[in-house]
Amino acid sequence: MLKFSINKPLFLQALNATKRAISSKNAIPILSTIKIEVAANGVTLTGSNGQISIENFISVANENAGLLITSPGAVLLEASFFINIVSSLPDVTVDFEEIEQHQILLKSGKSEITLKGKDVDHYPRIQEVSTSNPLVMETKVLKNLISETAFAASTQESRPILTGVHLVLTNNKDFKAVATDSHRMSQRQLTLENMTDNFDVVLPSKSLREFSAVFSDEVETVEIFFSPSQLLFRSDHISFYTRLLEGTYPDTDRLLMSNFETEAIFNTQSLRSAMERAFLISNATQNGTVKLEITNGQVSAHVNSPEVGKVNEELDVNAVEGADLTISFNPTYLIEALKALKSETVVVRFLSPVRPFTLTPGNDSENFIQLITPVRTN
Amino acid sequence: MLKFSINKPLFLQALNATKRAISSKNAIPILSTIKIEVAANGVTLTGSNGQISIENFISVANENAGLLITSPGAVLLEASFFINIVSSLPDVTVDFEEIEQHQILLKSGKSEITLKGKDVDHYPRIQEVSTSNPLVMETKVLKNLISETAFAASTQESRPILTGVHLVLTNNKDFKAVATDSHRMSQRQLTLENMTDNFDVVLPSKSLREFSAVFSDEVETVEIFFSPSQLLFRSDHISFYTRLLEGTYPDTDRLLMSNFETEAIFNTQSLRSAMERAFLISNATQNGTVKLEITNGQVSAHVNSPEVGKVNEELDVNAVEGADLTISFNPTYLIEALKALKSETVVVRFLSPVRPFTLTPGNDSENFIQLITPVRTN
Repeated sequence: MLKFSINKPLFLQALNATKRAISSKNAIPILSTIKIEVAANGVTLTGSNGQISIENFISVANENAGLLITSPGAVLLEASFFINIVSSLPDVTVDFEEIEQHQILLKSGKSEITLKGKDVDHYPRIQEVSTSNPLVMETKVLKNLISETAFAASTQESRPILTGVHLVLTNNKDFKAVATDSHRMSQRQLTLENMTDNFDVVLPSKSLREFSAVFSDEVETVEIFFSPSQLLFRSDHISFYTRLLEGTYPDTDRLLMSNFETEAIFNTQSLRSAMERAFLISNATQNGTVKLEITNGQVSAHVNSPEVGKVNEELDVNAVEGADLTISFNPTYLIEALKALKSETVVVRFLSPVRPFTLTPGNDSENFIQLITPVRTN
Repeated sequence: MLKFSINKPLFLQALNATKRAISSKNAIPILSTIKIEVAANGVTLTGSNGQISIENFISVANENAGLLITSPGAVLLEASFFINIVSSLPDVTVDFEEIEQHQILLKSGKSEITLKGKDVDHYPRIQEVSTSNPLVMETKVLKNLISETAFAASTQESRPILTGVHLVLTNNKDFKAVATDSHRMSQRQLTLENMTDNFDVVLPSKSLREFSAVFSDEVETVEIFFSPSQLLFRSDHISFYTRLLEGTYPDTDRLLMSNFETEAIFNTQSLRSAMERAFLISNATQNGTVKLEITNGQVSAHVNSPEVGKVNEELDVNAVEGADLTISFNPTYLIEALKALKSETVVVRFLSPVRPFTLTPGNDSENFIQLITPVRTN
């Protein structure tokens, strides 16, 4: 029967990272538990919601863990409840011991807490992913790419494939991440330093956001492994599994136009603030839009929501070139697109009032492009 | 038609303080608006939910307000919506102008926003409170007294009078505040420096909590005025009205016992942590309790929730005197009582397992007393 003692703050940190895969309201009750497996070389914590699974390994070699293993074993405990209990313990060290079948005694300071656990045999097995020939990426690059694309994926289940981010590697080095909900699109491209096998997968955008939350910035690189139905992100001590979305991702390249009639360069923050004001008024009307007018080098924004009021605002613009134009769109899409841009300025290019317009960062026009579809307002 | 310009940060601060009286989901739709009244000497903002009302006056004499009044008038605007709009404005100055009947034009920087308002004639009148002969109290003292008592009031409407805090002045100087939900009681007494008229009122504990949020610590003193149905707290620029609760408050003095059999002195924080651990387990059972055992100068806490587990803990105790005792109670009441105590140590006195026990701060046993009713087990 399992027995170990461990440093409480480090244990809590590992429990909380693992808990990100656990939903307390899972339709499968066993998935609200956390699996604790003790072997001679360390403790493995496992959490899963059926879509993503996290394995977190605490090694006896990790000095901060203060891990002393007396006896191996495994048990399931209600994740949220157990984490609250551990976090309430008075001392910096926790003694964890199975005293009867699935009965865990926690000792810390003068406090003794007995918890009822469950048999690990009931826990589902995580499908294995073959761990050979990894794609190695900097965590920072990967998290950046996620923050630039995942928000543009659909949240509607009507076309499940659009709830994902399309990740494609061609020519063994050209990496492309793209997401679209059919109203807007965001695409980041980059060139890998080392050649690797091509791939073409669609990952749930939700999984990617969890990835960013689980892997802290201290983790410098992650290894990525592919299987037909899953993808595994792996660092030193964390294995993060996510299922892939099935189906064919739509061809988004055909949406990218090469020509444009009007180009305007804005300060990113100032355009975003103006759109946030516009949104407050447009949002009062169903499907409310903002109208952008470009006339003689001036850009102005207009909203009219008959029930609550209107906005008229002359926008600060760094440069305007090309034809005059009037175009209407949902300001939310522009606000979210600008949030994803880290550059100080943004280049916006228009072809016509009924064709999508593009946004590219002022300092890098080739590798990151976003696209927003206008709304026709007769 | 009204017109003024004002400093945006100060305007926002005043709007947000006034909004504390406004509920966006009020059954009376007009109460979701904020009233803006402009006179030659300043702007008055008014918000109300029918229970509490706040009037916030911004004077032209206030240099931080940058208030320039061109024309007086009054209008009602949707409070939350208007505050969001003001907070989104680009410049540090806001120009506010009624351009048509109840149509407000806000100008700030290059932004122009038009809002639809409502006629002030529809706004209910706040009942006046005669402002003579005030009771003057330090804001800090009043807020302290609220934090020591209001939490103990009932949240159940079954006995409305118990949702209030009983404030009584006797002998023109002996001030007592007491709240009870019939399971626990908290009472603070203090002696006023200046003699004043006796009073006996019951204030909704909710109103008192709002009072603490509205009056910042920079406000040194408040004046208090009484009317048969209302109470007015007034500072330099804020008038805070609250209705009184009707009915007779129960006699709580009879609950205070003078004798006890057992006394234990604890470190407040350490007892609270132990009770928080106990609560995690007791909370898994309906009406779960913690059992305190005092034996031979040792104090231990025990919880048994058959479904999830149990706690056994020896408590750190500074001193124990008197008879051995075993008593059970809801740990929530003790946790909340200890939160209200600012002293490092707490004196707990027991008479018997079926009689309420008292808590007093280690440094002040006469003026602040709390009482918790035990639960009879088997």
